[in-house]
Amino acid sequence: MFMCARYLFGVKMAVYLPSPLEILERKKMPATISDVPTPSFLVDFDKVKKNAQKMIDTCERLGVQLRPHMKTHKTVELGTLMTNGTNRTIEVSTLEEAEFYARNGFDDILYAHPLIAARIERCKSLAYRLKAFHVMIESSHGLIALLSCPLKNGKKWSIYLEIDDGSGRSGVPWESDDVIKLAKEASESPYIDFQGLYLFNGRTYEAKGTRGIENANKEGTDLLQTLHKRFTDNNIDCRTLAIGNTPSCSRPHESMNVLTEFHPGNYIFYDMQQATIGSCSRDEIACRLTTRIIGHKPSHNVFLIDCGFLALSYDGMAEHPDEFSTFLDHPDLKVIGFSQEIGKVTTKSGDKLNYDKYPIGSQLFIFPWHSCATACQHTGFYVHSGNKITDMWTPAKGW
Amino acid sequence: MFMCARYLFGVKMAVYLPSPLEILERKKMPATISDVPTPSFLVDFDKVKKNAQKMIDTCERLGVQLRPHMKTHKTVELGTLMTNGTNRTIEVSTLEEAEFYARNGFDDILYAHPLIAARIERCKSLAYRLKAFHVMIESSHGLIALLSCPLKNGKKWSIYLEIDDGSGRSGVPWESDDVIKLAKEASESPYIDFQGLYLFNGRTYEAKGTRGIENANKEGTDLLQTLHKRFTDNNIDCRTLAIGNTPSCSRPHESMNVLTEFHPGNYIFYDMQQATIGSCSRDEIACRLTTRIIGHKPSHNVFLIDCGFLALSYDGMAEHPDEFSTFLDHPDLKVIGFSQEIGKVTTKSGDKLNYDKYPIGSQLFIFPWHSCATACQHTGFYVHSGNKITDMWTPAKGW
Repeated sequence: MFMCARYLFGVKMAVYLPSPLEILERKKMPATISDVPTPSFLVDFDKVKKNAQKMIDTCERLGVQLRPHMKTHKTVELGTLMTNGTNRTIEVSTLEEAEFYARNGFDDILYAHPLIAARIERCKSLAYRLKAFHVMIESSHGLIALLSCPLKNGKKWSIYLEIDDGSGRSGVPWESDDVIKLAKEASESPYIDFQGLYLFNGRTYEAKGTRGIENANKEGTDLLQTLHKRFTDNNIDCRTLAIGNTPSCSRPHESMNVLTEFHPGNYIFYDMQQATIGSCSRDEIACRLTTRIIGHKPSHNVFLIDCGFLALSYDGMAEHPDEFSTFLDHPDLKVIGFSQEIGKVTTKSGDKLNYDKYPIGSQLFIFPWHSCATACQHTGFYVHSGNKITDMWTPAKGW
Repeated sequence: MFMCARYLFGVKMAVYLPSPLEILERKKMPATISDVPTPSFLVDFDKVKKNAQKMIDTCERLGVQLRPHMKTHKTVELGTLMTNGTNRTIEVSTLEEAEFYARNGFDDILYAHPLIAARIERCKSLAYRLKAFHVMIESSHGLIALLSCPLKNGKKWSIYLEIDDGSGRSGVPWESDDVIKLAKEASESPYIDFQGLYLFNGRTYEAKGTRGIENANKEGTDLLQTLHKRFTDNNIDCRTLAIGNTPSCSRPHESMNVLTEFHPGNYIFYDMQQATIGSCSRDEIACRLTTRIIGHKPSHNVFLIDCGFLALSYDGMAEHPDEFSTFLDHPDLKVIGFSQEIGKVTTKSGDKLNYDKYPIGSQLFIFPWHSCATACQHTGFYVHSGNKITDMWTPAKGW
């Protein structure tokens, strides 16, 4: 498979050109879910469409700009779906993703990772290539890096300032003087176009249920507004108040209509973690891992599946051993151990496994704990509508 | 980048043909370790060469055939190094790997994963394509799948029978009647070429130090010999007695010269897990992850690095929180939390971080807990000799 930039030949081209071998292999595209090789990552097209539309509607209702995060899936197809067909106004977590989306005709891209000097050259290329490319800073290191490398031809560095609400993630501590200092320096520089503030709002991941998330959202919004007032008092122009993450944007508080941007990502798939927090119902989870039983170990009350840590990822295993591998239609099953390509499955209840019910070769489906972590383990996603396989999507990889 | 099979045009070609864009990008190949983008997976060429040679020498001394496992790295280059330039007699964990190595001129490939009927078609193609392709079975399901799909043109299915020593991994329980039953049925079938037995020898992962591993090896070898005697008593021809895993083959017991094959894989890189078990010294670890500091959080006594769970993997974090992320030259540092692209680092001792020592932008190196898990997260490995970057290798991906 080789990547071919659309602009290279001046005509609109497919994202990936298959090699001759792959063209042959495409003929063997599985017809239904039962035919896909295992382990595989499955995307339910009808559900991702619904999830995408619901977030578009939420943002329209609240009057905020949706800037969906691509890090969960990293595909062109879902980028288009999440931006309502515009291929504009997205967020990415790596420069590789930024370059991938730029190459595939997307624009207005926010590279949402604390900027360091070592990445300036690649950022510069993106800033020149795109109509709108934004970077995120959370330290004077990032700001100095930009100021020491001003853009030419009338271009300015467009920046978001990331705020930490105290949870200790990336971002400038929101109550510190540094917030004002950095924002003032940025907004007064002729080389910089200061957009405003971004808050991840980590509180929502501690919340439980719709009401809990809404309350966390109210607090996050209040924090951004307080900061906005401090900016006004200090004559800093701040056009953007952005809030991130899937719980926040899936269960918004009505007060969030004072914000200007929503940056959710995981909502396109959702997962067991989001269902547990209360961001979605389990029925809204739009992705699954499929695996097959490859062995029986009655001496250990275990059967083996062809899904090891490489296909599912360890995410959630230590903290949520009973939920991190939730089997569709088999609520009593769980994965208790992994090697690279094999998982060990037993019962949550301790009941004896009925091996007649689980013959070797039979297919099972797992809802991931964290769909971003699981999706990133796969180089292709099988897309289905009902049981029918309709497409295969290829995500960007690497940094 | 597009994959191009060597045989396609009847001439010897590079494994991967770069796209025009990539040719441009190759010009920017980093000169030294300090120039590589972060996070990146680094392979120390001088050390992998030594590790490969040492295992070749061990096998020669004991008179056993080395069949190195490719699952740790999945690259053509290390496959060649581990097979002493022959590109023959290897082991793989997925069909994708088998096809990748077949496409790149390797032969005598063992697909070491419990066989299920759903994979017979791809196995058949490999069996016809290669001079020697072997599958592994551990159940009557696997055997029936093979017998219902005999090969033609004088070809036979070549099989290894996997044995479980009681640890509950894949394999037929070694004391069971099923071992004899399956082996007898296989060896008497005109469609099957029964090679013999494979034991992973899980005991070595419970061992400590050279002596502990050697003792575990003695037990594993005794077990295989006991079984071999049972086979002889039952008139089953068993040519191969194979033992797997890196601790086993790195610290062999002299009695292992009665065996015929060694199947180690991880030894090419080693990692903190192997150093902890005693399979290697820390100096023999031939891979590292490189990352840069991207933020300071003095309120939490933490700094942030651009290495999240995606670049390092969670492997070892829950069970070995102090060792799973071992920083070169900074023994008091450890990762205490991850998001997809960010790691949080603090001190093991609880001492206050000296931020002057760790400026934003500075580069650090991490020895992975489990190099197989970390390597598999990367689409390319930077190869270095001393500080100089000499090459970039591209691993196979997927299933």
